[in-house]
Amino acid sequence: MNDDTKPIRVLGISGSLRKASYNTMLLRNAMEMLPPGMSVEIFDLAPIPLYNEDVREKGFPAPVQQLRDKIAQCDALLIATPEYNYSIPGVLKNAIDWASRPPDQPFSGKPVAIMGATPSTGRTIRSQLHLRQCFVFLNMHPVNKPEVLISDAARIFDEQGRLTDDTTRGFVKDLVAALAVWTRTVRGG
Amino acid sequence: MNDDTKPIRVLGISGSLRKASYNTMLLRNAMEMLPPGMSVEIFDLAPIPLYNEDVREKGFPAPVQQLRDKIAQCDALLIATPEYNYSIPGVLKNAIDWASRPPDQPFSGKPVAIMGATPSTGRTIRSQLHLRQCFVFLNMHPVNKPEVLISDAARIFDEQGRLTDDTTRGFVKDLVAALAVWTRTVRGG
Amino acid sequence: MNDDTKPIRVLGISGSLRKASYNTMLLRNAMEMLPPGMSVEIFDLAPIPLYNEDVREKGFPAPVQQLRDKIAQCDALLIATPEYNYSIPGVLKNAIDWASRPPDQPFSGKPVAIMGATPSTGRTIRSQLHLRQCFVFLNMHPVNKPEVLISDAARIFDEQGRLTDDTTRGFVKDLVAALAVWTRTVRGG
Amino acid sequence: MNDDTKPIRVLGISGSLRKASYNTMLLRNAMEMLPPGMSVEIFDLAPIPLYNEDVREKGFPAPVQQLRDKIAQCDALLIATPEYNYSIPGVLKNAIDWASRPPDQPFSGKPVAIMGATPSTGRTIRSQLHLRQCFVFLNMHPVNKPEVLISDAARIFDEQGRLTDDTTRGFVKDLVAALAVWTRTVRGG
Repeated sequence: MNDDTKPIRVLGISGSLRKASYNTMLLRNAMEMLPPGMSVEIFDLAPIPLYNEDVREKGFPAPVQQLRDKIAQCDALLIATPEYNYSIPGVLKNAIDWASRPPDQPFSGKPVAIMGATPSTGRTIRSQLHLRQCFVFLNMHPVNKPEVLISDAARIFDEQGRLTDDTTRGFVKDLVAALAVWTRTVRGG
Repeated sequence: MNDDTKPIRVLGISGSLRKASYNTMLLRNAMEMLPPGMSVEIFDLAPIPLYNEDVREKGFPAPVQQLRDKIAQCDALLIATPEYNYSIPGVLKNAIDWASRPPDQPFSGKPVAIMGATPSTGRTIRSQLHLRQCFVFLNMHPVNKPEVLISDAARIFDEQGRLTDDTTRGFVKDLVAALAVWTRTVRGG
Repeated sequence: MNDDTKPIRVLGISGSLRKASYNTMLLRNAMEMLPPGMSVEIFDLAPIPLYNEDVREKGFPAPVQQLRDKIAQCDALLIATPEYNYSIPGVLKNAIDWASRPPDQPFSGKPVAIMGATPSTGRTIRSQLHLRQCFVFLNMHPVNKPEVLISDAARIFDEQGRLTDDTTRGFVKDLVAALAVWTRTVRGG
Repeated sequence: MNDDTKPIRVLGISGSLRKASYNTMLLRNAMEMLPPGMSVEIFDLAPIPLYNEDVREKGFPAPVQQLRDKIAQCDALLIATPEYNYSIPGVLKNAIDWASRPPDQPFSGKPVAIMGATPSTGRTIRSQLHLRQCFVFLNMHPVNKPEVLISDAARIFDEQGRLTDDTTRGFVKDLVAALAVWTRTVRGG
């Protein structure tokens, strides 16, 4: 039996560093649609350096260690990412590369949900597929449905970054609700 | 009719920044097996910053501009890359994300060959597949065969970084030879 | 709390039709290593016709209906598949295409585990990745680990089809054990 | 120098068997937009049986042998395919599995172009990516651009199967033109 009162702490990550990122906006909007018991904290990837194994051998840089700790402590992840060149943004992949390194692998066993927005037409389909492939290696448990795949993103946010399209709001709300249910299922109560 | 005397200038890129990278070693070994007329210059990705569209709008950082120029000037690319988390290393993907941005897209129409080495067992298969998927967007023309997919990489280099395994040397030599033929085919002589 | 006494009925599917298929052998060997409470029934794909929507509109052919019923009734699936042309065998994909059609979609919500064997070197890596991608659409929940990826399959079975390699036996046993745990997790007891 | 007068014989294959298939319609419409020198013959996959290696060892079934001969004789392929379950239709993959078997592999070295139509929203993106991955194994040379990715297909054909949407007609025409140029490039005149 699942324990529906135990809180779910979610780590939110945006695959884009630009200030007015549609994907960061998506995360911020999602934070206002959370089901009871769920909270989201956003981690900013900007201070993460380029991955270099020679550096790692001397110890994780402070922002990387902080990311690893946040992942270890969270109950689930929520990733909002654009698609670049038909794949995962290097910025996001680089953060995953750092965070997944030994001695421990903090992603293992975590539930995760993905959403993606692009100002063009590809709906971040290919990027999300590559990310799901990473999750197999990372031993993460992704939410299948709904898939939040947003094209033409410029039209669905107002100037304050509020998601104004009701259909899209519905998908985002359904996704975080599904993440809550799935997190409770995966951890067995 | 192809013009076999026109030189082929290749830009070599390694997906790993560590000093003793097996993939950088692969590139260096490949440089000693080139067919007549082909030359390889290696570009080091270490100075490339994390991609940020807000930065790009003010102009490409100097190392990015240099990478873009090198890509525009080369006749073909040779990429040697590890696989991290069942996909392309963030470091490599981040460089591609920068280099592919408007106003021009310097990868377009270029022939490319990939090789990959890993100290473990996965042979970089998944990483190379994702990279090939990026090439569709980038409008690049990848060499199909041979696929240089190296597992257990620690055993095939000596302490000076020389590739000592004859079978692997054969694959690398065949790959650069195939890249030369393919480059002449794609540019039509 | 999971109910470890409730039985788990698994539907086993082989992606190869040949009589001495390594993948069918894998399934048969797995059937002798099941954890308590788990049973496996193998469904033979040979009688499934080529998918044709014009035929479907008149009603599912009998073997397809039988497959759909078996999927609907099982608690989990176990798929053993070769890799052809870097993807899922057409025979297996064709069966999935039939079974997934409306009015209902019997795969939805089912846990699934994959294993694969090939007489050559690619370990069915690419085939399994494509299959996992189908599972997103089908809303299935795949086991992540262990990944049973077998190359050089001719050497690990004896003439009676018994899996003789102890390491591989260990992986198969771990996979069905993981499928049992995962099935109990996903159905919440 | 390319020889623009040498004819280009294209083998067209549809991934759907239903009579009113949008993808078969796409092929038929493409046949009316061919550049000078190009001709397309459509091969119907309906008579191809399910792949079975035990059968193959006794000899290719007649429809398979016919497909193999047609592939061997053509200068390029044009594939129009729907997407089922986020991947290649089993019917199409099954035909590729048969046609690619030893002793010879008739796809090797052939240029190929893909297009895809679906009545729903996914634009056959994932199906085309999987198909491109097969092409690496098959040693085929796919056209990169334009990518003909058609959603909401019901709205772009009239009752006689004529493609009425001008934008889509433009993409199809550009694709066959690109296939002609690419075929001449790959064969070197």
